[in-house]
Amino acid sequence: MDILTIIGKKRDKQELNKQEINYFITEYTKGNIPDYQAAALIMAIYINGMKEREITDLTLAMADSGEKIDLSEIGAIMVDKHSTGGVGDKVTIVLLPIIASLGIPVAKMSGRGLGITGGTIDKLEAIPGYKTDLSVKKIIENTQTIGICLTGQTLDLAPADKKIYALRDAINCTANIPLIASSIMSKKIASGSHKIVIDATCGKGAFMKTKEEAVALSKMMVRIGKQVERETVCVLTNMDEPLGMAIGNSLEIIEAIEFLKGKSIPDLEEVVLELGSYMIKLAGKGENLSENKERIKEVIQNGKAFAKLFELVLNQGGDTSYIEDTTKFSKAKYILPVLADEEGSVQEIDAEKIGSVSVYLGAGRMRKEDKIDYEVGIVLNKKIGDMVKIGESLAFIHVNDEEKAQGAIENVKNAFRISEKKTMRPKMILGSIE
Amino acid sequence: MDILTIIGKKRDKQELNKQEINYFITEYTKGNIPDYQAAALIMAIYINGMKEREITDLTLAMADSGEKIDLSEIGAIMVDKHSTGGVGDKVTIVLLPIIASLGIPVAKMSGRGLGITGGTIDKLEAIPGYKTDLSVKKIIENTQTIGICLTGQTLDLAPADKKIYALRDAINCTANIPLIASSIMSKKIASGSHKIVIDATCGKGAFMKTKEEAVALSKMMVRIGKQVERETVCVLTNMDEPLGMAIGNSLEIIEAIEFLKGKSIPDLEEVVLELGSYMIKLAGKGENLSENKERIKEVIQNGKAFAKLFELVLNQGGDTSYIEDTTKFSKAKYILPVLADEEGSVQEIDAEKIGSVSVYLGAGRMRKEDKIDYEVGIVLNKKIGDMVKIGESLAFIHVNDEEKAQGAIENVKNAFRISEKKTMRPKMILGSIE
Repeated sequence: MDILTIIGKKRDKQELNKQEINYFITEYTKGNIPDYQAAALIMAIYINGMKEREITDLTLAMADSGEKIDLSEIGAIMVDKHSTGGVGDKVTIVLLPIIASLGIPVAKMSGRGLGITGGTIDKLEAIPGYKTDLSVKKIIENTQTIGICLTGQTLDLAPADKKIYALRDAINCTANIPLIASSIMSKKIASGSHKIVIDATCGKGAFMKTKEEAVALSKMMVRIGKQVERETVCVLTNMDEPLGMAIGNSLEIIEAIEFLKGKSIPDLEEVVLELGSYMIKLAGKGENLSENKERIKEVIQNGKAFAKLFELVLNQGGDTSYIEDTTKFSKAKYILPVLADEEGSVQEIDAEKIGSVSVYLGAGRMRKEDKIDYEVGIVLNKKIGDMVKIGESLAFIHVNDEEKAQGAIENVKNAFRISEKKTMRPKMILGSIE
Repeated sequence: MDILTIIGKKRDKQELNKQEINYFITEYTKGNIPDYQAAALIMAIYINGMKEREITDLTLAMADSGEKIDLSEIGAIMVDKHSTGGVGDKVTIVLLPIIASLGIPVAKMSGRGLGITGGTIDKLEAIPGYKTDLSVKKIIENTQTIGICLTGQTLDLAPADKKIYALRDAINCTANIPLIASSIMSKKIASGSHKIVIDATCGKGAFMKTKEEAVALSKMMVRIGKQVERETVCVLTNMDEPLGMAIGNSLEIIEAIEFLKGKSIPDLEEVVLELGSYMIKLAGKGENLSENKERIKEVIQNGKAFAKLFELVLNQGGDTSYIEDTTKFSKAKYILPVLADEEGSVQEIDAEKIGSVSVYLGAGRMRKEDKIDYEVGIVLNKKIGDMVKIGESLAFIHVNDEEKAQGAIENVKNAFRISEKKTMRPKMILGSIE
């Protein structure tokens, strides 16, 4: 087996066999194949594509490239939830306590934010004391005792995926369905989940800009899931405008807590109900999706979901007084309104632009090593479909660096498109693939 | 301008503009673009192709990437001769003295051998004392005084091509017409030739295995030549069996000398006459190709071509007594016959296999840093179309390492295919593209 032959086959649009894919992944992970050869192969895969069989083999090879977690000790069907990324996405923080409060154990390792996409772990760390570096032993123990664990990644899961992901970024080969699908699924497999519900975001604030792309990616992930016997459902969700009102780490944590305390946030609720109903179904705890949604509403209303969040934060060392009283979260120095200078109905709030402002303010990272500022961000006051009068606030900028305020205000204003045309609140759920 | 955008465009089969191509070549040569990004772009070019305009821009950018030679001081139209590589190819050593003896000045920088393809410079260095590291000043001076100079490359010509060539080799992207054509033409442009005659070899011992490939490559080089105003003619020649009888450095020099002394070597003569007639034409010294061929035959017959070779060797410090008496070249320790064990007509002598044996014996290099043995090689006793009896010699192996003898004999024997069918001597000239 040699890498030149493998590169040559894919260059000529031939199918790679399992041994060839395994050889590439194993040797590249070990550092025996240089980046330039991997780059040539990745480009050939990008242009010439892969058959479903090849993508499955690639996924499994990457999943097998490092440590793997076995959650079977917990003794339940473990359903994981994953999002392909969005702006203002606090679904995990809301949804996992909900599912756990229904008696379905959940254990999730989340990531940090990069680019305009925030990270669940960054948001959780806005809670003073909350630990995100739990060992696998501790994850299993926590899940067994209180039914929930929500932490970061400490193990070296799917290192081949990490290397290939970084390389794809450096050679402009990110937006490719076989490569994205295998990347996501390899991490899920390595992290020990038995079944997977994927929030396949599409729109301006998502990686997939169109529904067609999101459908194609979803179908691919569902098919990989079948091949590797990890049942996968993809819910297609709208990510044209940011999800909910808050964008920024402690701002989003506050919104998530308030939501579980009963505050109405319609678009967030719609997504939570849909994803949650599938998680319950895949866990084998309810075939009927409508009934599942009612059960979710119930645990929000009766406070059980909030109680589970409280228990989670307590169990992982967080200061629960912040959960009880969200005014305790430290605020940014300046909270400045973005005022409307035209009247009408909000047609559009460009999530990508809002996400970029959030990163600019310090809430996100442009590079992995960047530090983030938990306090800063944007809180929307208007959403698509809302009526606006001149001088009314469209949003509030939470900013610590005075010099950044004016630019941020301008850019948030530019993210809004207002016109006389009456607009409906957009549908959040665009379909599902299972 | 940034490399990711350039990679993305070619990845999506878009045309690169001149600025983008120049940026890539300049920055890659400087080391500002890493190999993995260049590898991704090269693979995208390989798969998605380039328009003629792009290939021309690539050629010029590579030609401009380092030092360039200006031969205009010589005061004549300088016609260069290039071969796409073959086994037993001593055409340059024979042809350049011929052309110079016709009063047409020639100055050529040749390369060293790599793989099964021998190098003119290695062969010339088999002549004791012959200098191959002349400065540009000296090249011009020699050409002005005696009308000929034949040396190696001392300047850093087209360094971008060198880097890209090595990278292509490491990512299995060598066999690609835009990349080969721009590589050859960039070096020719940088080396200052005004017009170019290319020996486009095709067959088992050549890079291009079929006539179709050689035609496609030739058309591309001729078009590039037009674009950059360096008239180019490609002569398609047969390289199924080795050219002439000798393969190996001093063995080939001896053959070249004997040819200029009047020894008949039909296939070599055919190639020399065709290429030479075009060199004379391009130099503006004779429109009629048939007449040009007669003039070449004449300077061989009357000894003027040999006298010019003698003058060249003398002028570049070589020991001319070797030219006068070729028995002075030191011989390999063992000269062993390869005996036929079947009777019939020679159908095939696989030039690639013969070239490999030559490298195995030490006449060639597998890696740039390998040393070569001038004495070793193969001398054919039979060519395609010749009749053979059992026990007759097909070839002689010249070998210094006794242990290599048996394997070499076996492999040379295997390169021959003999059958009862009567075969003609193959046609050497398959066409020309101008």
